[in-house]
Amino acid sequence: MIKVGIIGATGYAGAELVRLLLMRDDVEIVWYGSRSYIDKKFSDVFGNMVKLVDAKCMDDNMEALADMADVIFTATPQGLCASLVNENILSKTKIIDLSADFRIKDVATYEEWYKLEHKSPQFIDEAVYGLCEINRADIKNARLIANPGCYPTCSTLSIYPLLKEGLIDPHSIIIDAKSGTSGAGRGAKTDNLFCEVNESIKAYGVAVHRHTPEIEEQLSYAAGTKVMLNFTPHLVPMNRGILITAYANLKEKVTYEQVKAVYDKYYENEYFVRVLEKDVCPQTRWVEGSNFVDVNFKIDERTGRIIMMGAMDNLVKGAAGQAVQNMNIMFGLEENKGLKIVPLFP
Amino acid sequence: MIKVGIIGATGYAGAELVRLLLMRDDVEIVWYGSRSYIDKKFSDVFGNMVKLVDAKCMDDNMEALADMADVIFTATPQGLCASLVNENILSKTKIIDLSADFRIKDVATYEEWYKLEHKSPQFIDEAVYGLCEINRADIKNARLIANPGCYPTCSTLSIYPLLKEGLIDPHSIIIDAKSGTSGAGRGAKTDNLFCEVNESIKAYGVAVHRHTPEIEEQLSYAAGTKVMLNFTPHLVPMNRGILITAYANLKEKVTYEQVKAVYDKYYENEYFVRVLEKDVCPQTRWVEGSNFVDVNFKIDERTGRIIMMGAMDNLVKGAAGQAVQNMNIMFGLEENKGLKIVPLFP
Amino acid sequence: MIKVGIIGATGYAGAELVRLLLMRDDVEIVWYGSRSYIDKKFSDVFGNMVKLVDAKCMDDNMEALADMADVIFTATPQGLCASLVNENILSKTKIIDLSADFRIKDVATYEEWYKLEHKSPQFIDEAVYGLCEINRADIKNARLIANPGCYPTCSTLSIYPLLKEGLIDPHSIIIDAKSGTSGAGRGAKTDNLFCEVNESIKAYGVAVHRHTPEIEEQLSYAAGTKVMLNFTPHLVPMNRGILITAYANLKEKVTYEQVKAVYDKYYENEYFVRVLEKDVCPQTRWVEGSNFVDVNFKIDERTGRIIMMGAMDNLVKGAAGQAVQNMNIMFGLEENKGLKIVPLFP
Amino acid sequence: MIKVGIIGATGYAGAELVRLLLMRDDVEIVWYGSRSYIDKKFSDVFGNMVKLVDAKCMDDNMEALADMADVIFTATPQGLCASLVNENILSKTKIIDLSADFRIKDVATYEEWYKLEHKSPQFIDEAVYGLCEINRADIKNARLIANPGCYPTCSTLSIYPLLKEGLIDPHSIIIDAKSGTSGAGRGAKTDNLFCEVNESIKAYGVAVHRHTPEIEEQLSYAAGTKVMLNFTPHLVPMNRGILITAYANLKEKVTYEQVKAVYDKYYENEYFVRVLEKDVCPQTRWVEGSNFVDVNFKIDERTGRIIMMGAMDNLVKGAAGQAVQNMNIMFGLEENKGLKIVPLFP
Repeated sequence: MIKVGIIGATGYAGAELVRLLLMRDDVEIVWYGSRSYIDKKFSDVFGNMVKLVDAKCMDDNMEALADMADVIFTATPQGLCASLVNENILSKTKIIDLSADFRIKDVATYEEWYKLEHKSPQFIDEAVYGLCEINRADIKNARLIANPGCYPTCSTLSIYPLLKEGLIDPHSIIIDAKSGTSGAGRGAKTDNLFCEVNESIKAYGVAVHRHTPEIEEQLSYAAGTKVMLNFTPHLVPMNRGILITAYANLKEKVTYEQVKAVYDKYYENEYFVRVLEKDVCPQTRWVEGSNFVDVNFKIDERTGRIIMMGAMDNLVKGAAGQAVQNMNIMFGLEENKGLKIVPLFP
Repeated sequence: MIKVGIIGATGYAGAELVRLLLMRDDVEIVWYGSRSYIDKKFSDVFGNMVKLVDAKCMDDNMEALADMADVIFTATPQGLCASLVNENILSKTKIIDLSADFRIKDVATYEEWYKLEHKSPQFIDEAVYGLCEINRADIKNARLIANPGCYPTCSTLSIYPLLKEGLIDPHSIIIDAKSGTSGAGRGAKTDNLFCEVNESIKAYGVAVHRHTPEIEEQLSYAAGTKVMLNFTPHLVPMNRGILITAYANLKEKVTYEQVKAVYDKYYENEYFVRVLEKDVCPQTRWVEGSNFVDVNFKIDERTGRIIMMGAMDNLVKGAAGQAVQNMNIMFGLEENKGLKIVPLFP
Repeated sequence: MIKVGIIGATGYAGAELVRLLLMRDDVEIVWYGSRSYIDKKFSDVFGNMVKLVDAKCMDDNMEALADMADVIFTATPQGLCASLVNENILSKTKIIDLSADFRIKDVATYEEWYKLEHKSPQFIDEAVYGLCEINRADIKNARLIANPGCYPTCSTLSIYPLLKEGLIDPHSIIIDAKSGTSGAGRGAKTDNLFCEVNESIKAYGVAVHRHTPEIEEQLSYAAGTKVMLNFTPHLVPMNRGILITAYANLKEKVTYEQVKAVYDKYYENEYFVRVLEKDVCPQTRWVEGSNFVDVNFKIDERTGRIIMMGAMDNLVKGAAGQAVQNMNIMFGLEENKGLKIVPLFP
Repeated sequence: MIKVGIIGATGYAGAELVRLLLMRDDVEIVWYGSRSYIDKKFSDVFGNMVKLVDAKCMDDNMEALADMADVIFTATPQGLCASLVNENILSKTKIIDLSADFRIKDVATYEEWYKLEHKSPQFIDEAVYGLCEINRADIKNARLIANPGCYPTCSTLSIYPLLKEGLIDPHSIIIDAKSGTSGAGRGAKTDNLFCEVNESIKAYGVAVHRHTPEIEEQLSYAAGTKVMLNFTPHLVPMNRGILITAYANLKEKVTYEQVKAVYDKYYENEYFVRVLEKDVCPQTRWVEGSNFVDVNFKIDERTGRIIMMGAMDNLVKGAAGQAVQNMNIMFGLEENKGLKIVPLFP
């Protein structure tokens, strides 16, 4: 029985962890951390958990938790995990951090984009970026996982193979992303009220969104050269789902079959990545509630560009699902254990 | 391994059966019936099934299917199951009919409300109304299950205990129901287009909706007297979910505790019925994707009425989930096998 | 030129007043009151007003405003108008109060349901309940209008004729109401976030909603006897719109034509009330953005009940539109001036 | 009194024309053409028009209509207007064609992208592309207006100034567009059902969408050189609204102020184009129901690109509103007559 503690259990990602872990019989959640709801029944906050979770919310005490849990998930705002973690804790338990604290290897870049001082830079090197399909080997033995951001997961998986194989110009990449509103979190902000989001779409964080350096870092590893790109997220009136539409210049003429072969080379044996059939566009409705990422591409011969598309559930593969996938790898379990969820439609 | 055939697999209820059954390792779907999509890959119609279902759609051949399947689900328009079923088929396999063909014991009532001639009235008596929480014993040995309608399931479970225990006047019942749009089916009708449904709510089928006699029949069994009631369904701009708000005159003054005790008497040991805490109103978001029915009530001392409320997912407990629950009972399995799904939120 | 001041201009109802009044050339808005946004440009809060409104938000100073404005609209939380109004102000300007402060004639009832002490009970008698179709004559000469609540407007207009003409039992009325989310206001509450409201429906305020005594009072005038009823509002995932479905026992058998004649008697010459054709159910999509109320009914001979339905835009006829209609009457203008808006669909 | 005939009055764009024209007292609609609903009352199809329109739908008889109407709007599928128009008709009346038939000057390009034979190529030269802000002078004297497509209107207005002034590389343009579902029309297709669109986003027509050559043609006029670009539309779960996010390489370093000055040069005196304040992103909710286009931009110094954004209502400025704007110009009226509509929010 794997004992799990969750810090930040009453955000959307935290509650999604609960959903995924409750359906397993080899996992026990021993700590529902939520500073905002201490001593309140978890199922009073998330009514879907009535009769399924009896526990009350607890404070964010990572020291205490380290003694109880085999693994701690932190689904908290940036900065919290870095401020709590220490060698003593890491010697006792594993940590999977869903925040951005350990995703970026260069502290200065982190501090510039996040406007925060990093409280534990000594663990950045050790932390493994938990994009499972790419860093599987390192994840296996990690103590500290930096669980990827939602946009970076979808963007990287959609673009990675073409960049790695040198098919596209690394300086030409533009990512236009669209996310459901759960990505904006559960905080009570006027901008996220139903009437403000419904019947509207907008870009936000244009040229300054904090997932930009994370995507650039991962794609730079693929390209073997420093990648700088444009990333523009948009808010869509739906609960879940991320779609990315990425554009890049093809280095030379390629056929559909050639590009398809490249995607297949990387993903043929990946359970969670589905390369769709020719001309079928990824749609978020086909992945809702699941850990799948659907990817596809279209070559535009007129302009010499390729359009790469990816769709996934931002709360699953973009957060809690990938965190569980990381946990599975770290504990030597089947990677898709508890994650063979059929997408919910409609 | 239970071999399952589905006739009508490309409607919303049929596809939901596929979703629920794919997650089990003791069930194999051997027939994806869909007259509209014969020879088309099922996953070309339902993109969520890519890499999960490889099969193509087949015709509605119940005779052939009876030789292959241990149980046949018919998720088809009214009249089809009654036109296909016969003694030979029932001698070889079990049938769980998600249409209304065998729900109403009085043929004349069926024919009047459905404007159809019943093609197999000889099986009506034998058919068991598959409202599991109430007819569990009979379901166990049935060959033919009339899987309840979505509105009748939610209405009956919400009202049944109070009527059975004689707390409310059976002639005073009014049910105001609200359903997500998947209840309207997947047919290409202008009225169900996104732009026609979104940003609107309407009543429909006022005083003539075909679930009315089904609800009345079930509640009449509870009351021990003929119940006639008002049932008004409404179309809500959401995919899934049914909420019913029911009103009745209390026969005499009762306390919260007395009514609560009655609900508990019937549902305390029911896995799928959750009687909520005092003053907590059922909401469809807390049951989405699951087989739960959340019920609660409020006494209005001023008017002497009680307001009963129930929420469930119309495609799960209101269709496919209850059908699987019936299958579990019929095959001697744990009743909640494959159905311990945590509701998806948000 | 009518000079208008708005207190509470940055709530949904206040901003809707701005929308309606900006389209007129006989009205000038001289005060955009909003305590939360003092000195902020109104169009920075409501981006739809860019290039249309140049003004900044002002404090809630009713004394100052009384010297500048011919009429003051208060679109503020309960209690504020009553706390600000006095004889001096009313001697200088007219007030149309969109809150509940002056709607209920019995102070004790107001204080009990609203849990507030009434600060200006001396003006309650004088205040005219601004349901234009019914109190037109009194509105003409009023200084202080109690602009009706959204649910009471829709409920009263749907039921009034039948009660007035004695067709229905006044003790049998049940109103099941459904509202879009703008009715919940623009306050930053978790419960009203997009992800909490979308894909869900719930009842709220069951048996205790504060519009209940207001509806009962108005219907009591119609019935000539004290009416007590059940009123249950529901929150629907859409921006605008209220639908009410009301049930009552018919006192005796009536035909469709008889009931239709009663509705026509009251509404044939009303511009804003549309009695729909037989069997056409009101839908909120057909009234969006307009001041119309669509009503219809269905007789259920089986149960001896009648189902009355009404649909309107909660922010227009349910708030700002009716307030403008009241203003038109008070200033001797054509009642539908500036309100002949074609509903926006889709 | 301008007499107006509408062919295709029961599509979304046609009905929007009705909405806009009904609110005017200088216009009379003499013909509600709709082949699908001949002899049916228009208000039976569009319930928002009850009591506002009494007329019945008529056949698509352009010859008869030419004798009755001062101007004919064709809001019909591609090919119909070209198949009906002739010199006799054009000698009697003006035509504003909302389809694509006369938008593209090169017949071969039209026929290739639309897979249609053009039936009236002789009128293509004469037809004026009705993008009012740019072709105002020519529109004045036109007999035949090619009313621009929704995506081309939003795209062109957002990019035009920068291209015209030579700030961006014409070969680097990528347009990522997002549209509400009314853009998909009112045809009864499974893909546009509520449950298929809601809670999802997808790209469609990738690299082959038919608005591509139209945008390219207009931007080529601005650039003075042939522009080829990528255009990717997406379907968003909302009724109305288009947002475009466009990317281009800056030819040289520019400041915010320089770019702002360019936009102001073109749009300062345009009633319908609102250049937003620095860092304010256009959102479709702020333009709903109105003829406004909100535009803005963001310079990304890191990548040397500029991101241009535009938001408008696809049915108003993207179709019916611009058509009315064209009519106003053609008849020598104030250009914004009947179009000074305050956007509806929420």
